[in-house]
Amino acid sequence: MNILDLVVGKPIKTSDERAEQIGVSKGIPIFGLDALSSAAYGPEAGLSLLIPLGILGVRYLIPISVAIITLLVIVYFSYRQTIAAYPNGGGSYTVARFNLGARASLLAAAALLADYILTAAVGISAGVGALVSAVPSLLPHTTSMCVGILILITIINLRGVREAGVVFAVPTYLFVGTLLITIAAGILRVLLSHGHPTPIAALPPPPPMTEAVSYWLLLKAFASGCTALTGVEAVSNGVKAFRKPAVKNAQRTLTVIIFILTVMLAGISYLVKVYGIVATDPGQPGYQSLLSMLIGSVFGKGVFYYLTIASILIVLSLSANTAFADFPRLCRAIAQNDYLPHVFSYRGRRLVYTYGIVVLALLCGGLLISFGGVTDRLIPLYAVGAFLAFTLSQAGMVAHWRKHRGPHWLKSALVNGLGAFVTGITVIVVLVAKFVEGAWITVIFIPFTIFIFIVVRRHYHNIKVLTTSRVPVRAKLLSPPIAVIPIDRWSKISCQAIEFASRISPQVIAIHVEIGEYSELLRADWDRYVDQPFRDAGKEPPKLKVLSSPYRFVIIPTVQFILDLSKKHPSRTIVVVIPELIESKWYEYFFHNQRARLLEWVLIAKGNERIFTVNAPWYIGERS
Amino acid sequence: MNILDLVVGKPIKTSDERAEQIGVSKGIPIFGLDALSSAAYGPEAGLSLLIPLGILGVRYLIPISVAIITLLVIVYFSYRQTIAAYPNGGGSYTVARFNLGARASLLAAAALLADYILTAAVGISAGVGALVSAVPSLLPHTTSMCVGILILITIINLRGVREAGVVFAVPTYLFVGTLLITIAAGILRVLLSHGHPTPIAALPPPPPMTEAVSYWLLLKAFASGCTALTGVEAVSNGVKAFRKPAVKNAQRTLTVIIFILTVMLAGISYLVKVYGIVATDPGQPGYQSLLSMLIGSVFGKGVFYYLTIASILIVLSLSANTAFADFPRLCRAIAQNDYLPHVFSYRGRRLVYTYGIVVLALLCGGLLISFGGVTDRLIPLYAVGAFLAFTLSQAGMVAHWRKHRGPHWLKSALVNGLGAFVTGITVIVVLVAKFVEGAWITVIFIPFTIFIFIVVRRHYHNIKVLTTSRVPVRAKLLSPPIAVIPIDRWSKISCQAIEFASRISPQVIAIHVEIGEYSELLRADWDRYVDQPFRDAGKEPPKLKVLSSPYRFVIIPTVQFILDLSKKHPSRTIVVVIPELIESKWYEYFFHNQRARLLEWVLIAKGNERIFTVNAPWYIGERS
Repeated sequence: MNILDLVVGKPIKTSDERAEQIGVSKGIPIFGLDALSSAAYGPEAGLSLLIPLGILGVRYLIPISVAIITLLVIVYFSYRQTIAAYPNGGGSYTVARFNLGARASLLAAAALLADYILTAAVGISAGVGALVSAVPSLLPHTTSMCVGILILITIINLRGVREAGVVFAVPTYLFVGTLLITIAAGILRVLLSHGHPTPIAALPPPPPMTEAVSYWLLLKAFASGCTALTGVEAVSNGVKAFRKPAVKNAQRTLTVIIFILTVMLAGISYLVKVYGIVATDPGQPGYQSLLSMLIGSVFGKGVFYYLTIASILIVLSLSANTAFADFPRLCRAIAQNDYLPHVFSYRGRRLVYTYGIVVLALLCGGLLISFGGVTDRLIPLYAVGAFLAFTLSQAGMVAHWRKHRGPHWLKSALVNGLGAFVTGITVIVVLVAKFVEGAWITVIFIPFTIFIFIVVRRHYHNIKVLTTSRVPVRAKLLSPPIAVIPIDRWSKISCQAIEFASRISPQVIAIHVEIGEYSELLRADWDRYVDQPFRDAGKEPPKLKVLSSPYRFVIIPTVQFILDLSKKHPSRTIVVVIPELIESKWYEYFFHNQRARLLEWVLIAKGNERIFTVNAPWYIGERS
Repeated sequence: MNILDLVVGKPIKTSDERAEQIGVSKGIPIFGLDALSSAAYGPEAGLSLLIPLGILGVRYLIPISVAIITLLVIVYFSYRQTIAAYPNGGGSYTVARFNLGARASLLAAAALLADYILTAAVGISAGVGALVSAVPSLLPHTTSMCVGILILITIINLRGVREAGVVFAVPTYLFVGTLLITIAAGILRVLLSHGHPTPIAALPPPPPMTEAVSYWLLLKAFASGCTALTGVEAVSNGVKAFRKPAVKNAQRTLTVIIFILTVMLAGISYLVKVYGIVATDPGQPGYQSLLSMLIGSVFGKGVFYYLTIASILIVLSLSANTAFADFPRLCRAIAQNDYLPHVFSYRGRRLVYTYGIVVLALLCGGLLISFGGVTDRLIPLYAVGAFLAFTLSQAGMVAHWRKHRGPHWLKSALVNGLGAFVTGITVIVVLVAKFVEGAWITVIFIPFTIFIFIVVRRHYHNIKVLTTSRVPVRAKLLSPPIAVIPIDRWSKISCQAIEFASRISPQVIAIHVEIGEYSELLRADWDRYVDQPFRDAGKEPPKLKVLSSPYRFVIIPTVQFILDLSKKHPSRTIVVVIPELIESKWYEYFFHNQRARLLEWVLIAKGNERIFTVNAPWYIGERS
């Protein structure tokens, strides 16, 4: 009955969420997509900071990559333990809440919200980046393509998606497969050419060196490159979904994901160095993504090239899509603790968390538009949230081990402690290195979000105190209400409303606003169809009250009558029965009931606690 | 309680519309603004068609102007009679409806709607045209300025405006005054220079002659120039508003308006000819409006010039504003005859016809954007609607005189007949001359609108037949309903709801969905605050039914329980009492009641005619 039907689909029936039990091979695409797709933008994010070094920049890629991969391995061992300790799912918010207290959990929640918003934004922008590398003529339309994909993903999510394994599996394996083939073929070519391969598709000329190398520059490159790690926490959130033994299967899945990611990162770095690929200026004419240049160098721009680019675009869009599942779910968890408005915890017509999806889409769209859909500009914002969440999660695990003190607790605490330490250091590095470039936005966003959490919580608390009652109901002396029915003519609808009113009260008043030709007819009908039957049944008949309205307005005199009635009977309750015609087609909504809604709205706005409204639905067509 | 409050203001109280009685001097700005402002674009619309003739085009201006002024005089006498015959207001729709029947009235209605949409669009575009003439650097922003002014006017009208006389009077008299001074000064200069005045501000060089003169071209120029007549019908719609003797005062007002308009049109034409002003290409760099060139020629571009341009911009914007009063009012009249959805006849929170205003804004915005805010491209659409309405109104008057056959009826019928004839001819001329340039849009719009009228009318008719009843109410055997109350915890809100439910039914069931820590507490509270008091009063206590919900969803189990209950008791009525917390600040709306609304919505969508919902409002703060 709504225009929304067209776009987001008809309301769907409730059915229990399918609790599919998944194994390692299915787990890799579902929980690994986000982490693996980071390989498509992480290395480039680091490398593009080395542009000012010209062709020399390539030299420093390997040490930076080694540092990032080391960090990845530490985070891996740390999350292996989280999986074991929280088999029901150990997201940063949960772990921080149970082990570090409410304040730390709010920090984790805010960091995670920032992380998810950026996951969506970077996924889309990097995917479009791959596309414009393959089809340079699309470059001027970067922002509008980003917004288009965002709108598409939003609509898909508002309609509700069953996370069908195959949708994730095919592109993920295609992405991993093509990239590993490229790496293997690239290494083979390097060996065959004795370390001096010739790129098949010509590379853009390296830019001139405009800056001397400095530790500061390398640190910034490391900070940006760290975004290659984002998404590795996904498995630890979803342990519950695995087949038994769930913990073992989840850990195996994590191992495989991290292994593939390591191979991809190492392979990409090695080939970039050997081929001498230098990043191109993001957002400028002539831009080409790192992977585009790499695949072009190894295979040329043939079918395989376009297949790989397509799989990158799809995988990155799907990774944005995971944010559309995670963000609303986290909002729901926060709302259930009263830190966000409860609307975030209600599922809408399509069994999805509509509010969370819409809020994410707006924030993500705002970012994409402000930053022109250029990944490189979004990266500084991304790393802060993601690594802050990592740190809090690991720190929470340390507290967890200290509390539970099982066997080997100290070893476990040390592993997580190392994870917390290095990710914490990374947060600080990213903050310092990237503050001016955009990290400050996250620095403002996180405290602001926490402020909102606190204000909302306080509001709910106040309302709770205000409505708390220690007074019993007044069971005696509950007189029936006066029932009032607005009526335009004698119809099946008004008949139903009058019958209902008579069920709940012996004192029924029908009010008719005299605006047209119906009044005389109504009086006659009323005598015949209402007054007489009641008299025949020996009951007090309802009264018909005709109100005049010189300007043909209906709502105002009706409301006035009800308010006057309420004043005249200060001890009585008044029920206004509002008949409503329910039609089946959405556009028919515009024909009817607007007056009913308006009357209800005005009564709520101007009324008092003794005035109640009843919706009396009258359905066109058959109903069970 | 709504974000709308910020933009369109808080709901306002009802008060009767002020029935101010106006005289001639106040009537001129209020009813004349629209007609007089036509002088700002009508002559230019004609002249810009003569651009291909180069400097020679000026020669043909005078005969075209004479034709237009003759038409104006005929229309004047025709409308004088309409005023006398319909002292309660004789708009085209009314006159056609009473005299030519329902079909012709629909044609008139559709033509008028087109007319109002174009009045708004042309008013805005011509105003912006004056502005960019004075400040040429604004030219590239024409469309966005048009949309900006449209949004401003829309918001002002959604907030509701009392048509304060002074707001109209000052700019109208300023506009008329400055223009008449310009004309007088121009004629003086012509006399002093013996017919060869030198423009003070240099005129743009006349374009080369690219076309030979043809009757076809002159006909097109006449058709466009006719838009100078739009708006003259306004007085006849508003006779009621005049001081007694209303008809005399209205006629005098019309006389003055037409006299001023004639002087302005004649003066502009004469000076344009003598100064040899040639129109510039609209929408192209170097564009300058006709009046801008004229005033510049006479006075140079000093303070007086900018004052006049400012008054033109304001007067044209106000003329667009009159469409925002007329369009919704006409929609209301049409909706009251069931030809448009009834929503058009409801006044919203600010006592304005919100739907009509929004629809006008959307249509007008669509036109302004499609045509790039260029008046010259909108003109062809404008003349068709306006002159079709003229014709139907005059033809209706002929039928009126024939029916009433008073003294001199034949003379009156002849005057109106001449009016109908010449305006009818003009419609055909405009249609033929301007079909390709845009008149076809109006030709599609009018039948399409009539089609909508008919479909809507049929829909309402069908619903009326479907709901018509010749069956009396069942006065006997009306058993009380089963009352169901969703309850989360014991609070003042649930107490109020239970008391209300007990007033209307002896059988009350409270349902509680177990999702959190409240359940045990609620059971204890229930025994103490509900069960015991009812037993003490010797009444059957309400039942508490606890439903489990593993996924912490509330709506679904509640609805399921109610549907099951309805199935179990096929002869009983069920009332669902939905407590609602009413707060006073708009943003607090997001905190509460979304669940209540959702429950109500799902119950209506999935429910049946025996399931009713009650809104039980609980107000924070004091209420009378």
